[in-house]
Amino acid sequence: MPPYKLASRDFHPDNTIIRVGNVDIGKDVVIIAGPCAIEGVNFVEQAKQLSKMGVNILRGGAYKPRTSPYSFSGLEEEGLEILAEARKQSGLPFVTEITDIRNLDLFCQYVDIIQVGSRNMQNFCLLQELGRISHPVLLKRGYAAKLDEWLLAAEYILAEGNKNVILCERGIRSFETYTRYTFDINAIPAVKTLSHLPIIADPSHGTGRKELVIPVAKAALAAGADGVMVEVHPDPERALSDGGQSLTMNEFKELISFLGRLQCRTIRG
Amino acid sequence: MPPYKLASRDFHPDNTIIRVGNVDIGKDVVIIAGPCAIEGVNFVEQAKQLSKMGVNILRGGAYKPRTSPYSFSGLEEEGLEILAEARKQSGLPFVTEITDIRNLDLFCQYVDIIQVGSRNMQNFCLLQELGRISHPVLLKRGYAAKLDEWLLAAEYILAEGNKNVILCERGIRSFETYTRYTFDINAIPAVKTLSHLPIIADPSHGTGRKELVIPVAKAALAAGADGVMVEVHPDPERALSDGGQSLTMNEFKELISFLGRLQCRTIRG
Amino acid sequence: MPPYKLASRDFHPDNTIIRVGNVDIGKDVVIIAGPCAIEGVNFVEQAKQLSKMGVNILRGGAYKPRTSPYSFSGLEEEGLEILAEARKQSGLPFVTEITDIRNLDLFCQYVDIIQVGSRNMQNFCLLQELGRISHPVLLKRGYAAKLDEWLLAAEYILAEGNKNVILCERGIRSFETYTRYTFDINAIPAVKTLSHLPIIADPSHGTGRKELVIPVAKAALAAGADGVMVEVHPDPERALSDGGQSLTMNEFKELISFLGRLQCRTIRG
Amino acid sequence: MPPYKLASRDFHPDNTIIRVGNVDIGKDVVIIAGPCAIEGVNFVEQAKQLSKMGVNILRGGAYKPRTSPYSFSGLEEEGLEILAEARKQSGLPFVTEITDIRNLDLFCQYVDIIQVGSRNMQNFCLLQELGRISHPVLLKRGYAAKLDEWLLAAEYILAEGNKNVILCERGIRSFETYTRYTFDINAIPAVKTLSHLPIIADPSHGTGRKELVIPVAKAALAAGADGVMVEVHPDPERALSDGGQSLTMNEFKELISFLGRLQCRTIRG
Repeated sequence: MPPYKLASRDFHPDNTIIRVGNVDIGKDVVIIAGPCAIEGVNFVEQAKQLSKMGVNILRGGAYKPRTSPYSFSGLEEEGLEILAEARKQSGLPFVTEITDIRNLDLFCQYVDIIQVGSRNMQNFCLLQELGRISHPVLLKRGYAAKLDEWLLAAEYILAEGNKNVILCERGIRSFETYTRYTFDINAIPAVKTLSHLPIIADPSHGTGRKELVIPVAKAALAAGADGVMVEVHPDPERALSDGGQSLTMNEFKELISFLGRLQCRTIRG
Repeated sequence: MPPYKLASRDFHPDNTIIRVGNVDIGKDVVIIAGPCAIEGVNFVEQAKQLSKMGVNILRGGAYKPRTSPYSFSGLEEEGLEILAEARKQSGLPFVTEITDIRNLDLFCQYVDIIQVGSRNMQNFCLLQELGRISHPVLLKRGYAAKLDEWLLAAEYILAEGNKNVILCERGIRSFETYTRYTFDINAIPAVKTLSHLPIIADPSHGTGRKELVIPVAKAALAAGADGVMVEVHPDPERALSDGGQSLTMNEFKELISFLGRLQCRTIRG
Repeated sequence: MPPYKLASRDFHPDNTIIRVGNVDIGKDVVIIAGPCAIEGVNFVEQAKQLSKMGVNILRGGAYKPRTSPYSFSGLEEEGLEILAEARKQSGLPFVTEITDIRNLDLFCQYVDIIQVGSRNMQNFCLLQELGRISHPVLLKRGYAAKLDEWLLAAEYILAEGNKNVILCERGIRSFETYTRYTFDINAIPAVKTLSHLPIIADPSHGTGRKELVIPVAKAALAAGADGVMVEVHPDPERALSDGGQSLTMNEFKELISFLGRLQCRTIRG
Repeated sequence: MPPYKLASRDFHPDNTIIRVGNVDIGKDVVIIAGPCAIEGVNFVEQAKQLSKMGVNILRGGAYKPRTSPYSFSGLEEEGLEILAEARKQSGLPFVTEITDIRNLDLFCQYVDIIQVGSRNMQNFCLLQELGRISHPVLLKRGYAAKLDEWLLAAEYILAEGNKNVILCERGIRSFETYTRYTFDINAIPAVKTLSHLPIIADPSHGTGRKELVIPVAKAALAAGADGVMVEVHPDPERALSDGGQSLTMNEFKELISFLGRLQCRTIRG
């Protein structure tokens, strides 16, 4: 018996499917893309291009949890406004991370999918508040969380009544230093076995190296992930955060084209 | 050059010393003891006994971050009231963990030392608010945090103006499963080299097994820790949390007696 | 500059291709299959079936390194004879692990591909001796080896003159306990970038759970692996070792059929 | 029930005590010291000084397992001869590492304590051969070995009849990068509980930083270790290996003097 109940597949044998914009997360293959942080209004232009390329959902940080207090920490409310404008012009919904429980009302007003970052996966009071709203929540795995702990974090949200939880594997901390994190590919089919919740892969954080993002994105889809979330920046070398793991728009096209060519049914067969 | 500044020993060559109750943390050897969670008014009696045994500071959780939403999560404000009563009757100050930034005013009113737990070490908005008050903050190391990340978390508090930061090593997550965590003994002298902040050892969480608590407490002091924080419960088998790592009052006496016999100057040389 | 030379792609820009039986390892997608340990002559029958199913190379342990001295440690030379008989009747070459440098002559006589197991990845005298023969060597990654250390282990073999080194990712040790090891999917494209050597995936050891083997095998191929090595046992519940991670012959057919349907060019695009 | 038998304290309640030179390992506090690698006849002079300082056993590598095939790998048999000469002139026995099972006769002839290095902890054929002789064996923990696996490695030696096994904790691999390894202080009292075998601490490899060696040595003794093994080099900056973690002779005196001042009974309680 697992320690969670509502999150378990025994409790809910069918896949949970969450409709956001034009996709059914948990059924369709979902592509989420955008820069690490929203850096200015240029994002609106990028969003329109991403929309034309077939992206389903935009991503971009307005409030950025940074390891150092001296790093760029996001445009905050201005960032949310830019995201909302990008949604308006591109037609795409967006996901962005909440870092402070006191911003919840603001997020409910602006945001389509509220992301809980890796460092807040066990911020239990935040999880409980997110359980009391109905917005979809993208719950990233803590970078040192075991599968049980992650599903118990989801349980905190589900237990308060919000059924719209989307899991996101983003790499775990191991002894390997060549990559920033170790993407835990085992977690994809393991979570599909243990739980009915959809699971998205984040190969950008899961590798930390741009040349590994596309192969690991393909791998995650082949292993059964419900979609990928990828950092794409118009000019990665000038990015204010995570430049080393961001694809250019052209590199990102390769991933999109792979997905088209593949007809995902085949790979996921 | 380390990525932190105010936390570094280069910036502040002398040890930071923080007066709490009758001890100078950073200079004296400090003993912090009490149960994992405050479970009722019986704690007041235990506190008086701990005081007679030579404990300097009480510990006990009123708000408990629990991996599962179905576990006992503390008596909350009632727990703070019991801690305050124990302080009154024992004469000892206490440390207790904050789990929700919205409780900060309440904590400022009741609490002597505010603890940031391992799971909140990178809850940056909480750290910033704690930087704007003057209460001492006991900052536990995230169980998967590198030393730099931990000292940068301290930097978040220091950078807002609160200089009273006490570090606490409580074990890291490794592949070893015999113990609950791996107490990182290297971190004690490493932090003493890198930083001027005091560092306390928590061998209860750092081992997760009661028979290992005393040897690892001794080890931490021998390596230069400024004190130990130990879970002691009058009846560990009936504890509502962490029974397996709690000492009985009698077992705890052995640690106290070791410290007396030793005259800590000798061991710390 | 990486610390290895002969193993690096800078030194040797084209993929190394190693012909074994009817496949070009490093160019074709290779399927290696068989039981963890050779348990008796029944293996000959299984080998013939595997051959009909499209397997390219047989696997099976004759000398088994076991964590406990009280576990079944293989049929030893009798196991090699059974493998040789299986080769004769199935037409397939085989790979098997060497555990004792003193058996090298015996292995050279019987074996097509000599495997170095995870626990011997840094058995440097063994690596050097393997560098002085011309048999292909399948070098498994140590379960706690960094990529650099793994490629340096390959360098030991290459530096003595044997160019026929095949790498095999088989999972690393992390804090996660749900799976036996964490299959490091990042390592597949990383090694392809850093080195010209072929790389095979072992999802059986890399997950330790049979229900995860096929999804992770697909993932590894999607990420660019040159093949997969899978444990298949006619009756996993009675296997003398590693039953929990072995596929039945029927389950294995699913993997084979996926590979056929897919036309691997598409997935690896 | 643990998976090992002969190594367990249940099987053999009293401490195993192994007499080497003038000390009872498992009863006295043992000091083992010397350079990482024997680099020439200068070692004889150093050995005489170490003897005067109160060292009990010399250490020094003649055959060095090196991560890279291009690093200095020891003076080999010439190194053994220098060690034997140092023994003759200093009166101290020595421990040195075996890396190749084919050198066992040579080692039996020259060496007082045969060391199995971390990378060979699961070289099972080597362990079995060491079980068939009567020389004391210093069995280092594999840097990613769980306690059970380590005690099972000891069981391989014990099961063949050699009872003279000394364990050595030398640090495990974790995510922390500030130190080379994470010295597992928990392992010291845990092994004392689980097993009757003596356990020595190696804080030089366990930290990889010279400024941490002495505090961690003290910690290990306070936690109950039966001794410490420390790298000391007359001129660490010119050492052919591991210079960064070697103490100078003067720094080493501080450790010796701590041990004298302390009267180890006090610290170990």
